[in-house]
Amino acid sequence: MTIAIIGGTGDEGFGLALRLVRAGEDVVIGSRSAERGQAAAEKAADLLGLGSGSGTRGSISGSSNEDATARSDLVFVTVPYAGQAEIYRSIRDAFRPDAVVCDTTTPLATAVGRPASQVVTPWEGSAAEQAKAILPKNLRLVSGFHTVSAEQLQDLEKPMEGDVLVCGAEPEAKAAVGALAEKIANLRWVDVGPLSMARIVERLTAVLVSVNRNYRIKESGISLTGRKSWGPPPSGEA
Amino acid sequence: MTIAIIGGTGDEGFGLALRLVRAGEDVVIGSRSAERGQAAAEKAADLLGLGSGSGTRGSISGSSNEDATARSDLVFVTVPYAGQAEIYRSIRDAFRPDAVVCDTTTPLATAVGRPASQVVTPWEGSAAEQAKAILPKNLRLVSGFHTVSAEQLQDLEKPMEGDVLVCGAEPEAKAAVGALAEKIANLRWVDVGPLSMARIVERLTAVLVSVNRNYRIKESGISLTGRKSWGPPPSGEA
Amino acid sequence: MTIAIIGGTGDEGFGLALRLVRAGEDVVIGSRSAERGQAAAEKAADLLGLGSGSGTRGSISGSSNEDATARSDLVFVTVPYAGQAEIYRSIRDAFRPDAVVCDTTTPLATAVGRPASQVVTPWEGSAAEQAKAILPKNLRLVSGFHTVSAEQLQDLEKPMEGDVLVCGAEPEAKAAVGALAEKIANLRWVDVGPLSMARIVERLTAVLVSVNRNYRIKESGISLTGRKSWGPPPSGEA
Amino acid sequence: MTIAIIGGTGDEGFGLALRLVRAGEDVVIGSRSAERGQAAAEKAADLLGLGSGSGTRGSISGSSNEDATARSDLVFVTVPYAGQAEIYRSIRDAFRPDAVVCDTTTPLATAVGRPASQVVTPWEGSAAEQAKAILPKNLRLVSGFHTVSAEQLQDLEKPMEGDVLVCGAEPEAKAAVGALAEKIANLRWVDVGPLSMARIVERLTAVLVSVNRNYRIKESGISLTGRKSWGPPPSGEA
Repeated sequence: MTIAIIGGTGDEGFGLALRLVRAGEDVVIGSRSAERGQAAAEKAADLLGLGSGSGTRGSISGSSNEDATARSDLVFVTVPYAGQAEIYRSIRDAFRPDAVVCDTTTPLATAVGRPASQVVTPWEGSAAEQAKAILPKNLRLVSGFHTVSAEQLQDLEKPMEGDVLVCGAEPEAKAAVGALAEKIANLRWVDVGPLSMARIVERLTAVLVSVNRNYRIKESGISLTGRKSWGPPPSGEA
Repeated sequence: MTIAIIGGTGDEGFGLALRLVRAGEDVVIGSRSAERGQAAAEKAADLLGLGSGSGTRGSISGSSNEDATARSDLVFVTVPYAGQAEIYRSIRDAFRPDAVVCDTTTPLATAVGRPASQVVTPWEGSAAEQAKAILPKNLRLVSGFHTVSAEQLQDLEKPMEGDVLVCGAEPEAKAAVGALAEKIANLRWVDVGPLSMARIVERLTAVLVSVNRNYRIKESGISLTGRKSWGPPPSGEA
Repeated sequence: MTIAIIGGTGDEGFGLALRLVRAGEDVVIGSRSAERGQAAAEKAADLLGLGSGSGTRGSISGSSNEDATARSDLVFVTVPYAGQAEIYRSIRDAFRPDAVVCDTTTPLATAVGRPASQVVTPWEGSAAEQAKAILPKNLRLVSGFHTVSAEQLQDLEKPMEGDVLVCGAEPEAKAAVGALAEKIANLRWVDVGPLSMARIVERLTAVLVSVNRNYRIKESGISLTGRKSWGPPPSGEA
Repeated sequence: MTIAIIGGTGDEGFGLALRLVRAGEDVVIGSRSAERGQAAAEKAADLLGLGSGSGTRGSISGSSNEDATARSDLVFVTVPYAGQAEIYRSIRDAFRPDAVVCDTTTPLATAVGRPASQVVTPWEGSAAEQAKAILPKNLRLVSGFHTVSAEQLQDLEKPMEGDVLVCGAEPEAKAAVGALAEKIANLRWVDVGPLSMARIVERLTAVLVSVNRNYRIKESGISLTGRKSWGPPPSGEA
């Protein structure tokens, strides 16, 4: 399985790439320019000690967003909201028909020059549903990872904390993204329901920005209580 | 200190009353009819074994919403969104000038006949800000407890889990509500920022409804990760 | 063609019934109770002078919402937002497969005890899209008439003013509702686009409430400028 | 009285400048660069035949946004939503204390790469309220002109149509903007209520974009019906 990380030169995407490669996955970092994608991949390889006997089994490369998309089974899109629609239009014809897309966008108000502890509400209700409106109808899209700290993902010395909240229409697509999340040590995933739940879950990023500022930290996250383990729900319900 | 629980005959309010009395607090359950408030108080006293040598130091009584408000330093309002505005209008002139109000309302779509895993968006952005618009200007209002399971609150055999997310304009008011929350064993409180954060935090109730249904449980909740302990933020920032 | 007016005992629905019967249409007023539907129909017949040589060619009767729906080709739903979902659930299995539904609901904040110059935002974005989510998938639904004054509709002495803004997915369904609107003297209809336009157009009712209060009138409405005549757009575009 | 038009190099602002100068007003076009402001002013002077015996009594000049703001009694801000917050921050310290600001922004979804017939919802509810949150507290802000066609404003051969819908907290500020609007031939103004009405009225621009596309025109607008003349409401109510 190949995993693309569109916008993988940003903090969230780059951190996710590091963690997934360390977990043994084959990752392609996509960027608007293939050169920057490659540069980010080289930086990641250095940080992970790839090729220097570190024992890491995963691989990393860099490419254009379109090419990374075309080569991958699972495509993470980790871009700022202001450019999200344009990025999706640029890759929409490159997806493999059976690909799973995981959108991690939060419609932070920074897109319109306002604070990161605020959001704007997209016409479709959420950034994920906006992405869905742009993509081919049958492509499977899930939304997730909004509450996982980019700082923590990038700090390979520290264990991860918190849960990956995943929503979407197709149980198998959610399970695929969830299974991948759980390859990263200490992460668990929770199926929070249909894609429209992104209208609430996406916005948690803004709450965490507020909490981080309030407590002068960088790594707040969210965990679900009420069950010892999560993973796929008993019913496989969407 | 006397604590009123307006709407204390409902699940969330009744559970909160039970836990606070057991923690040693003096609680008044308010209801539209004083009789129903008194009946709920009697039921709570029975469940807690008050007066039968259980050793519980707190007390509970029941009254009308107006009277409960007039007698209390801290007023929880735990009512369904459909009736929230009317309830606030009915008690707005009864508050002590130095009272702290904690609104726990979620604008669930059940208010308009739709599922509890959905919300409507109030004109003011959140149910808490709607309450603020109705109350006297100087009254201190915080928003909190939306992610604390009503089921769990009522099941006195089980320990609580999860964090109480509190937002509002006045640090001392948040700290007062937070300190009270921490009298309930295992609950912690987190200051998530200004009152407008309620626009996101309130809606978590709908996510938890979705999670509960998905996993066939009744007690999902939210916990913050990234810090060992929370409580008042270092800056006391609003 | 038979026209049902669900909620036809309310101001908007009753006014619409009066005007349509006077325009020669056959109308059934639906109500939760068939008796109230019949009483409203009798009142309308009186006001219109039906059966007394007034020359009005239309007819009016009253029935239950379900029966009125089952008998009609075009079904207006003119109910307050608080009860809209429940009403749609009660009639959803009664529609003829080729029926056209015209939803006139505005999600006024009165549904939750707040002023009529404010709105709440439904989970689906608009009351019309909420209705769509409840109805059978293939049923054709349009949204319209939100800016037509209920006062003016009921005052048969006065000519109507303003335009009927109609949105929806199917051009023929919009044209059917528009053609009917134009049978009422002086009303014109404008196709404002897809059903999602209801997210904006519905709310104009709240603006008109504000304008009415500001100018101490009851009959403000909206008219489109920029074209001498409107009606079906040249492309028939959705 | 001097009138600034911030963003006066755009279609709406430039058209407004043309019409106001022709009506005899003294206008300064503001732009991020003083040079572009001056170039736009020269273009406007040419179009209006200023200095060539056309008899136009108004004047026009160009400058930076800050300077234009500092020199003016009434400041129109006519900028795209994506840059609105940044522009307001750049001029917020330049306002005269008794200035009136008229915001004409619509939060079109084009700000995030989506169609102009859609909007995003700002954190504060409307672009006007977002501006209010950035500006000094006592500065008087109204919102208006969202339904006046930029095409029509710029086509000096054609008469204007439609009404200017104005909302805001201060009746005198609304009346000042309204009186100015009525200096443009055929324009009327209507006081639609408090600033929060911008949450609905701003979005009408998106409806007009949809109507324009549907009917293949460029000049749709909105007119209020129900009263022969509008202007200041009888009560002077906010």
